[in-house]
Amino acid sequence: MLNNDQKKNIAFLDCTLRDGGYYTNWDFNTGLLDHYLEKTNKLPIDYIELGYRSKVKTEYRGAFYYSPQFLLNYCKNRTDKKLAIILNEKEVNLQDLDELLDPCKNIIQMVRLAVAPSNLSRVVDIAENIKSRGFLVSVNLMYASKWEQNLYLEESFRRLNSVLDYFYVVDSYGSMHPSEVQEVFEKLRGAMDVKLGFHGHNNIEMALINSLTALDSGATIIDGTVCGMGRGAGNLKTELYLTVLHKKYNLKVDFDILNDLSNSFTNLKKKYGWGTNLPYMVSGAYSLPQNEVMGQVKKRFYSLNSIISEVQDVATNKEDFKFSAPAKKLVNQFVLVGGGQSPQKFYSFIREYLKQNPEMGIIHSSSKNLEVFRDLKNFQIHCIGGMEMDRLKNKLFVEQMENRIFIVSQERYSALNFAEKFKQNIRFLPKGHYQTNYTLSTTAMAMDIVNYYKAKKIMLIGYDGYDQSATKEQLELFNENQSIFDSIQVNKLKVSSLTSTKYDVNTNSIFSLI
Amino acid sequence: MLNNDQKKNIAFLDCTLRDGGYYTNWDFNTGLLDHYLEKTNKLPIDYIELGYRSKVKTEYRGAFYYSPQFLLNYCKNRTDKKLAIILNEKEVNLQDLDELLDPCKNIIQMVRLAVAPSNLSRVVDIAENIKSRGFLVSVNLMYASKWEQNLYLEESFRRLNSVLDYFYVVDSYGSMHPSEVQEVFEKLRGAMDVKLGFHGHNNIEMALINSLTALDSGATIIDGTVCGMGRGAGNLKTELYLTVLHKKYNLKVDFDILNDLSNSFTNLKKKYGWGTNLPYMVSGAYSLPQNEVMGQVKKRFYSLNSIISEVQDVATNKEDFKFSAPAKKLVNQFVLVGGGQSPQKFYSFIREYLKQNPEMGIIHSSSKNLEVFRDLKNFQIHCIGGMEMDRLKNKLFVEQMENRIFIVSQERYSALNFAEKFKQNIRFLPKGHYQTNYTLSTTAMAMDIVNYYKAKKIMLIGYDGYDQSATKEQLELFNENQSIFDSIQVNKLKVSSLTSTKYDVNTNSIFSLI
Repeated sequence: MLNNDQKKNIAFLDCTLRDGGYYTNWDFNTGLLDHYLEKTNKLPIDYIELGYRSKVKTEYRGAFYYSPQFLLNYCKNRTDKKLAIILNEKEVNLQDLDELLDPCKNIIQMVRLAVAPSNLSRVVDIAENIKSRGFLVSVNLMYASKWEQNLYLEESFRRLNSVLDYFYVVDSYGSMHPSEVQEVFEKLRGAMDVKLGFHGHNNIEMALINSLTALDSGATIIDGTVCGMGRGAGNLKTELYLTVLHKKYNLKVDFDILNDLSNSFTNLKKKYGWGTNLPYMVSGAYSLPQNEVMGQVKKRFYSLNSIISEVQDVATNKEDFKFSAPAKKLVNQFVLVGGGQSPQKFYSFIREYLKQNPEMGIIHSSSKNLEVFRDLKNFQIHCIGGMEMDRLKNKLFVEQMENRIFIVSQERYSALNFAEKFKQNIRFLPKGHYQTNYTLSTTAMAMDIVNYYKAKKIMLIGYDGYDQSATKEQLELFNENQSIFDSIQVNKLKVSSLTSTKYDVNTNSIFSLI
Repeated sequence: MLNNDQKKNIAFLDCTLRDGGYYTNWDFNTGLLDHYLEKTNKLPIDYIELGYRSKVKTEYRGAFYYSPQFLLNYCKNRTDKKLAIILNEKEVNLQDLDELLDPCKNIIQMVRLAVAPSNLSRVVDIAENIKSRGFLVSVNLMYASKWEQNLYLEESFRRLNSVLDYFYVVDSYGSMHPSEVQEVFEKLRGAMDVKLGFHGHNNIEMALINSLTALDSGATIIDGTVCGMGRGAGNLKTELYLTVLHKKYNLKVDFDILNDLSNSFTNLKKKYGWGTNLPYMVSGAYSLPQNEVMGQVKKRFYSLNSIISEVQDVATNKEDFKFSAPAKKLVNQFVLVGGGQSPQKFYSFIREYLKQNPEMGIIHSSSKNLEVFRDLKNFQIHCIGGMEMDRLKNKLFVEQMENRIFIVSQERYSALNFAEKFKQNIRFLPKGHYQTNYTLSTTAMAMDIVNYYKAKKIMLIGYDGYDQSATKEQLELFNENQSIFDSIQVNKLKVSSLTSTKYDVNTNSIFSLI
């Protein structure tokens, strides 16, 4: 192990522009870049990772996702630091390396490879090839909190050992405790003798102590980002690490420069608000992908209890429920009610149409417009996603339980606290084609229901689409729904919208039908 | 030591209303209080600390600073939790206890005493008295990162051991590392056998790992606050601690309730923005009072390097400087130039007045208006506080070094990187009456200079005061300056303002003098 003087001298890599890019879509303005390069020059930082090198994507990504040669040269001319770039191993093949790495020659010192444990054997040839081009090579092995015991026995370790300059432990979920870091490093030191690194995330605020523990356990390079800027909860904070190393190991730090550097990211921090919060802490505690947890909370409106219930039993009366398939009814046609505003706007017309067609079923993919249909005698099915059950609680009464069922998702017992009045009406639908392809989508659930009842026709009400002020989550939902509707049409099921819509489907005004 | 099942069952105390009060001046609106009590009722929290009990202060403090009986009853009626209040030991004597604690009877279970190590012996009688009133008693001993080795040998420990229910380790500076927590708990277990607690702060993001380490080292009660709300960098986050204990020890937690609770503090967090940042990290790393560090950065404009230079040598050429007392000149009258806007507004008039009176000295307490006076031949003295030297660097040229000196503070080598051109002109003034009473104030420094030169008369220019949009720091400076001027007048030194001012001093319009 290292003594304090050696610990002071181990390498530090700042990857603000790469990991922070997840918030800015890899755009950073030139003023900030210049400031960053100027200030880091005067700080005890050894490497700067500029960004990814990547093949062209169809969607827009900024400069630090591609790190074009112009950018590499621009930075090289403004920094004394050694430069690194990173490749996403799963998107890279041997034959891509000329295109990706030729522009890096004589500019970039280190090429890092972000690798999933399942792809470890694949990466050996790539690492060898990169090494032969004269770069330092690092494998950054992700998901360390979920590494299996037999990972360390893999033949790939032996082969990589003779190729790599650095092997990084990446705590992708930000979920490791110091004792786990220590254990992982001990095992790694038994499996290989290349230099070891640690890349920590801060979901449960362990990034610093884990990095210090990594140092104590033999790491010789540590990653961090300014203000911890990085996906979700973010990374080890460069300024925190340098401050603590200054105090603990007498590392030379100019704090006024460090303050200038961290202050220059304050505005971005205000804008994007990275840092930990309860959903990210839960992701960390349970090694769940934080973007997925946040997406389920913000887009699907699932509750944290329901998310955790998948990985560990929370206080729940799940066992009390005997789910059963819904009884079949002869329903040929359904209206599918979305969460848009048109049902409220055309309240009387829509109700009149359904009264005139009492044999028509109603499927609610959202509970937002439930009141419009509440007292109608049509057979009504509620697709329960997210926290819908909570919302329904005060909107439906015992008198309305006849001719109504609630379908819960197989993926997620989303309705952990069913009100007593609902219990008899809850049904469980085996996962069909749509739910398989569109996890957690209530529109997909509705399509599986339509299939289950072998209905021939489905009419949309309240699938209005979104206006220009739509959030990222809303746009994702829009695209997902559109893709479901496209696939229905392919399957010869007739779908049309009875109210004005931005979706690309046939329309058939409800006012022409009554 | 405890096994996992016991760890799950150790007590948790939430002190959001007490420690969060430092941001809200102990005001919390009733809606938030109701929500907090309702949600905490459903979470594995054992104690709620409502606030301080305190004698009347002259300045305004909210309900949770006094915790009047009405508030105690209001909360008691809305919570199933055990309630605690805390007393600030240094403000409390035995004879105050009737007044402070009679209203707590049958409502409050635990009375805690926040105690400085130097007062440990004093607190024994107070703790005994409180215990005799039927309360559980805790001593919360502050500044754990600075406890001396012989603290544990104090007779008070033996005496407290027979009185206390809990003894808390308080990491006041948020600066402890887990190994230090472990060491402190080991020593404490050697010195006493009462139940031990840990109260952590998050300056260097160690609050969680330190609390977990405390658990491993024998603590049986832990403190936290919702979203970490608390002075400066804040506390252990209640939601983080509960999440990790849920995962690690299978503690039963309803995450939807916990999410509701933490979300209800989001707006306060946006408004007050607690949490760590570089100045707070530095405070933590060096066990410095965080409010003092932040005050020096925000109010006095000192640089972090200069603050750290007091406690540890940073990269500095301090040794190169031989400070000398300023040469005495016969100067009877000084104008003292502040940082307000009037010197720029009345540029020509002010310059004309000083040209007409070349024997009059100019003292600059700020460099903001330096340009107005730059080329004047009057003897000029610059009081160097904060980062003034940095600001001066590009505003003064070698030609202007004649008849000009720079006075640096004894408290703080504020000008660590003197430009070469200044070196000959830097002087060091022995600390006088004003600097002793008003640490780091450049106005106080100016008054000591006036005394040093035995001048009889001082005229203010640019001490305009602040308007209604003044920040807290500006108002504090205003009050401090006013208090200095009041004290000057008592000392028979004539002081008047030549420009319009909000300070309560004599005025003597400059336009009447030229």
